[in-house]
Amino acid sequence: MNKKNMAVYPGSYDPLTNGHIDIIQRGLKIFDKIIVAVLKNPAKTYLFDLDERCQMLRDVFQDPDKIEVDHFEGLLVDYVKRRGVTTIVRGLRAISDFEIEFQMALMNRKIEPRIETIFFVPPESYSYLSSKLVKEIYMLGGEVSSMVPPIVDRKLKEKFRRQG
Amino acid sequence: MNKKNMAVYPGSYDPLTNGHIDIIQRGLKIFDKIIVAVLKNPAKTYLFDLDERCQMLRDVFQDPDKIEVDHFEGLLVDYVKRRGVTTIVRGLRAISDFEIEFQMALMNRKIEPRIETIFFVPPESYSYLSSKLVKEIYMLGGEVSSMVPPIVDRKLKEKFRRQG
Amino acid sequence: MNKKNMAVYPGSYDPLTNGHIDIIQRGLKIFDKIIVAVLKNPAKTYLFDLDERCQMLRDVFQDPDKIEVDHFEGLLVDYVKRRGVTTIVRGLRAISDFEIEFQMALMNRKIEPRIETIFFVPPESYSYLSSKLVKEIYMLGGEVSSMVPPIVDRKLKEKFRRQG
Amino acid sequence: MNKKNMAVYPGSYDPLTNGHIDIIQRGLKIFDKIIVAVLKNPAKTYLFDLDERCQMLRDVFQDPDKIEVDHFEGLLVDYVKRRGVTTIVRGLRAISDFEIEFQMALMNRKIEPRIETIFFVPPESYSYLSSKLVKEIYMLGGEVSSMVPPIVDRKLKEKFRRQG
Amino acid sequence: MNKKNMAVYPGSYDPLTNGHIDIIQRGLKIFDKIIVAVLKNPAKTYLFDLDERCQMLRDVFQDPDKIEVDHFEGLLVDYVKRRGVTTIVRGLRAISDFEIEFQMALMNRKIEPRIETIFFVPPESYSYLSSKLVKEIYMLGGEVSSMVPPIVDRKLKEKFRRQG
Amino acid sequence: MNKKNMAVYPGSYDPLTNGHIDIIQRGLKIFDKIIVAVLKNPAKTYLFDLDERCQMLRDVFQDPDKIEVDHFEGLLVDYVKRRGVTTIVRGLRAISDFEIEFQMALMNRKIEPRIETIFFVPPESYSYLSSKLVKEIYMLGGEVSSMVPPIVDRKLKEKFRRQG
Repeated sequence: MNKKNMAVYPGSYDPLTNGHIDIIQRGLKIFDKIIVAVLKNPAKTYLFDLDERCQMLRDVFQDPDKIEVDHFEGLLVDYVKRRGVTTIVRGLRAISDFEIEFQMALMNRKIEPRIETIFFVPPESYSYLSSKLVKEIYMLGGEVSSMVPPIVDRKLKEKFRRQG
Repeated sequence: MNKKNMAVYPGSYDPLTNGHIDIIQRGLKIFDKIIVAVLKNPAKTYLFDLDERCQMLRDVFQDPDKIEVDHFEGLLVDYVKRRGVTTIVRGLRAISDFEIEFQMALMNRKIEPRIETIFFVPPESYSYLSSKLVKEIYMLGGEVSSMVPPIVDRKLKEKFRRQG
Repeated sequence: MNKKNMAVYPGSYDPLTNGHIDIIQRGLKIFDKIIVAVLKNPAKTYLFDLDERCQMLRDVFQDPDKIEVDHFEGLLVDYVKRRGVTTIVRGLRAISDFEIEFQMALMNRKIEPRIETIFFVPPESYSYLSSKLVKEIYMLGGEVSSMVPPIVDRKLKEKFRRQG
Repeated sequence: MNKKNMAVYPGSYDPLTNGHIDIIQRGLKIFDKIIVAVLKNPAKTYLFDLDERCQMLRDVFQDPDKIEVDHFEGLLVDYVKRRGVTTIVRGLRAISDFEIEFQMALMNRKIEPRIETIFFVPPESYSYLSSKLVKEIYMLGGEVSSMVPPIVDRKLKEKFRRQG
Repeated sequence: MNKKNMAVYPGSYDPLTNGHIDIIQRGLKIFDKIIVAVLKNPAKTYLFDLDERCQMLRDVFQDPDKIEVDHFEGLLVDYVKRRGVTTIVRGLRAISDFEIEFQMALMNRKIEPRIETIFFVPPESYSYLSSKLVKEIYMLGGEVSSMVPPIVDRKLKEKFRRQG
Repeated sequence: MNKKNMAVYPGSYDPLTNGHIDIIQRGLKIFDKIIVAVLKNPAKTYLFDLDERCQMLRDVFQDPDKIEVDHFEGLLVDYVKRRGVTTIVRGLRAISDFEIEFQMALMNRKIEPRIETIFFVPPESYSYLSSKLVKEIYMLGGEVSSMVPPIVDRKLKEKFRRQG
């Protein structure tokens, strides 16, 4: 496959939300393949470990020719270069995302100018949706089934031994 | 050419700046062809008329297989659909762009959900560069040769009969 | 009626959109009566004149005990005081609204400290909806029937003699 | 009392500041009763424990018919529903508040569409005032008596055994 | 006088407000002399002509050794260079100012790197104060005596033949 | 030296970046002396301890008549007063800085009205540069030699025992 037609969509995916799925689907309108790259940052604490996060992604995306689930440690640009890809895909939900994403895009460009970051806009109904919020709502006893795919909802229930 | 590999980059281009050129070059990293679509809005007053704006673009971009210069009136999404393309490309320079661009992207999606808008980030040194600013600086007697391609600088001089 | 249970919702309503209707309905959850106050600013050019703007509002809201359509000239706080009301209602769609609305709320408070401005948040799907955008889309040949009530859509068609 | 005339003002109140008091007083211009709902989040560390935070509020607000001090755990919307109230009151100090408050308002609306969040604007002189800042200034040896009610100032002194 | 101890504070001053006066006074804490430079932009329409704007400034600031009133046309950086000064002073009231001021500061630096722009923050109570707002309030019949110096209030009354 | 010609530039400097150096150099265009004041906040964890942070600064700035390296604990305004200085210098990189810096400037002014904060704008190429980002990139295995002075790069290598 022409590497020009591939893009990396990096993130923590702790856990995968419907907002991530939306961005991946938008990406597939332009790219033939999206590599969903799960970040392993030893300095961070995750609710789901790397294996769980990757497994949930593989359960949801079952066409590895179009959506490949991979993971990486270290600098994103180093990973992207190793994969031979030149495009990073990100979602821009709101103005608070904007600055952080901009700084990351500019910093990544400084480290490796050939790598381009492009931004997709999720639907308005996902403008407040994030993995962090999903976890908070779930831990406070709320219902998140409309915000994550069924497999993630199930895994959250297992993790907290809550009755559905 | 596969329409998936084409994108429309709409704008007024009154006049073309180095910031536009940068976005077009970034777009060509992902798409095989960029259609530069010059907006003709009868309700607006332009410094350069439609012919002049298109001509400057054609002078700068001389490979029509990769960069096609076209113009349109009316709704952008109608034009994009007529061209059979599904991707709109825009630059996001700064937070002030962000809201206007977001509203346009969401509105265009509402009118035609199959059309996607993607955003590129220009280099930091272009973060303040706009056609409007170029015109203001030029009219106040300033030098804009580092902000626009030579042909545009020449056209500005002709228009204002200023000695170079 | 206790004046504490009334609020003024000021605006140009040129024309009324579904976004305005949403804010009015949210207001009625808290107030027994909303006075929709149409601004007549002689320094501004409107698409619909004051009578047309008021008439469209009266066609849509037919329960004057709950939603009264009125108009005013001059300072908003003077009008609100004349009506004996102490609350102004506004919608906050996005961050660009935020600053203008904040400045207006603080300025109005400085002029008349007893008058309070409160803000409602429209649904995400209305975050880009404004009278200005409705007019732009309509003039460029677009369809706005999902953004305005039917009577406004009809009035736009009459004004531009367009076939529905 | 008509539940329409009541509103919940949730927060951590760790500790109560003059900014909170201002919002409560603005709320009483519209509502007959404000329920000040102190959040107990087991995942968070507080300077003052739940009892201390509630007690300071009760010391300051001694008219429980108008200002009731209560506490809650879990999802805010669940608490608000249990109380039979449909309005949440929040203050919007500055643009940084805006996004977080917007996300919370939209998320709460998704979970329970009948509950409305409305926003009040504090005076400009409180635009930088927060419980967090009060604690930081106090711990660095600064004077906070103009930012909190006297009882809170006293409690801070007790907690840190500092001479007044 | 050492040019390092002087700064230019440019603006339209149409009319001078208490917000401008505040920035000038803050500037004098750092600089020995502030040159208040009134912009004459032939493309703009002013309420007060250049002479009136300069005269109001001279009436208010009567110590020309510390506050010199001057005017300029054309590019700001050209004027600042002609005056032999290297610092431009501006006020930052709010986030909406931020982007415009940033773009201007960066653009001016590009044209003339030796000229530095520094920003002062006005008091919170001036965060919404601008010449534009003063004119709007006055034209709508409002009172602006707390927002401008007495001489400007008088001139507004003369211009509109309103009884004080 | 006239205290009017001195300013304090406070920060954590953990570690010093080229962005800090840029602001210091801009400050020296206006002030005869900049006091670089390293914050020791016992509640924070630093990568480099106070001595290391001060030493790196002294290694880079070897003209103590113009750039004095000092450190402080407690409230910034108390330190600035003790030094007899009345101006604080800060950099404003981006909109996210803006709000925090504004709140700090307003809070400091409330505590001590005679102390003024002024803001400088770094070059666009430093708009994303921060000590935090430098540390993150370095820890992920990235190269930071273009973002910090050589002495800091060397100290980072020593700290992590990495081969240059």
